Amino acid sequence: MIEAYPPSCIALSGGAGGAKLAAGLARVVDPARLLIVANTGDDFEHLGLYISPDLDTLMYTLAGINNRHTGWGRAHETWTFMAALEALGGETWFRLGDGDLATHVERTRRLRADATLTAITADFAARLGIAARIVPMSDDAVRTVVDTPAGPLAFQHYFVRDRCQPQVSGFRFEGAVAAQANPVFVEALSDPALRAIVICPSNPFISIDPILALPDIRTRLETARAPVIAVSPVVGGRAVKGPTTKMMRELAMPESAAAVASHYGELLDGFVLDPVDAPIADQVRASGIDVLVTNTVMKTLADKETLAHAVLDFAEEYHRRQ
Amino acid sequence: MIEAYPPSCIALSGGAGGAKLAAGLARVVDPARLLIVANTGDDFEHLGLYISPDLDTLMYTLAGINNRHTGWGRAHETWTFMAALEALGGETWFRLGDGDLATHVERTRRLRADATLTAITADFAARLGIAARIVPMSDDAVRTVVDTPAGPLAFQHYFVRDRCQPQVSGFRFEGAVAAQANPVFVEALSDPALRAIVICPSNPFISIDPILALPDIRTRLETARAPVIAVSPVVGGRAVKGPTTKMMRELAMPESAAAVASHYGELLDGFVLDPVDAPIADQVRASGIDVLVTNTVMKTLADKETLAHAVLDFAEEYHRRQ
Repeated sequence: MIEAYPPSCIALSGGAGGAKLAAGLARVVDPARLLIVANTGDDFEHLGLYISPDLDTLMYTLAGINNRHTGWGRAHETWTFMAALEALGGETWFRLGDGDLATHVERTRRLRADATLTAITADFAARLGIAARIVPMSDDAVRTVVDTPAGPLAFQHYFVRDRCQPQVSGFRFEGAVAAQANPVFVEALSDPALRAIVICPSNPFISIDPILALPDIRTRLETARAPVIAVSPVVGGRAVKGPTTKMMRELAMPESAAAVASHYGELLDGFVLDPVDAPIADQVRASGIDVLVTNTVMKTLADKETLAHAVLDFAEEYHRRQ
Repeated sequence: MIEAYPPSCIALSGGAGGAKLAAGLARVVDPARLLIVANTGDDFEHLGLYISPDLDTLMYTLAGINNRHTGWGRAHETWTFMAALEALGGETWFRLGDGDLATHVERTRRLRADATLTAITADFAARLGIAARIVPMSDDAVRTVVDTPAGPLAFQHYFVRDRCQPQVSGFRFEGAVAAQANPVFVEALSDPALRAIVICPSNPFISIDPILALPDIRTRLETARAPVIAVSPVVGGRAVKGPTTKMMRELAMPESAAAVASHYGELLDGFVLDPVDAPIADQVRASGIDVLVTNTVMKTLADKETLAHAVLDFAEEYHRRQ
């Protein structure tokens, strides 16, 4: 299995949905040849702790210790800290499990001791037995801000505290222009052995766009010799998880997979649609993007592996056509 | 009961043993008239968190949520954080329970937001339903350093990491000279209504001496109109808990309650001995310190209350004799 896809693959991912495909890729690609680039636009400081939700979800998912019920946090979690914090009058809108807290406390400690997020993530991943490489999109701070009619909201205030209730009028990625994209990511993009750049089925606005907002990344993706293939996070006009289609509605976009493809636009070489969206495949192809129709809803580990294989085969077809 | 001791009382205390008597005092003194002054020489920063072991033990004990088996930490605790931290390669020599962690995280957050340790402690105590006032001995940093033949050790490295194994040659209280004693403490010492100053049965070297090392505190205690009464932490030549007698041996002191009394010296007006130490009562009296012989080993809540009553009655006798 590991030999089935020797060339290297880059996956861009946010949390839950993206992490599922990343986990599938990690099972079918030689882990040493897989680079997972995590959105860090969601990162924030809370209770004095540095929290990186997408990195954590990716790490927990690839280590097989993720909480499948919530889509975030760890399995077999306890909540003693949260109950005690509430009794002391602390802020409890962001739920931190006791085991999860170890990640935040230890990462914060190391960051204060001048370790980079990249180095910390590599060490945590190794200790958790993850063979694939996971890197933050940047070691510099990029913070997603959600614009609403009532004013801007820090991402986690919008997403968790306000439960995505406020209407969205746009997004900004503060710090992105001045940030340096992760050198590991930049180097991998120019690797001649690179065979596929996969945009995982994450929310395009808040999970993928922060990565694309980094200097030169869009250009590097467009000019890479490997195809850029996105898996639609919208299936049958609905987001598999999260507020993607609510955002599309508020941004006056059609709530469809086709709108996701046109949002990414010229960046894409290929787009992966679920069979329920087969009727719009031609609409996407008309914009010059190749389309693969295959099951994209991942419920089991086998689903993740099958989709990962399909996406990689789709990338190989692209190379054969060149 | 509450009316039984209307005048005000100050208790100086460290952790476990001292906290037991403090809890007894809180039950027999009008809580509004009781001030508990906690040693903060044990405080340290660990994993980026500000930890104040004696304040916490006092707070948990007075709130009735202390762990009676360990003598530190909280009852009904879980340990998920610690296990996860170990898996990530974090430092685990100082055990932090999941619920306990909320105290450290929330306190650290408030300290960084410029709240004082005094204000934070007052708020935590109120939220935990503690009526008596608990204050840190100072809002300034005082750090106990343990001198050993192999060099100085930060207190928690000596006490927890090295399990009190190193031989002790002395103690220093870094920052004490420049620190300001808690103004609440200083004010209470000059209150004409003050009737008793109780030195709880805590380790004299590491729990009480840091308080006495604060500027002017020794003088203020000696000149206060209320008697200073210490309850011996050494019973029958042994410390009820902790390394007190090991330290006495290493400091070439007799391992006895009498040596504790002479360590405090002229500060004391009264000394409380357990019946097993009745034979040395006269030896202590010979140094001009009045002695009360009564049960000092507190196993039950009734033991704590009985000892608290006995100590307060002993103080009243002092006033009658004046």
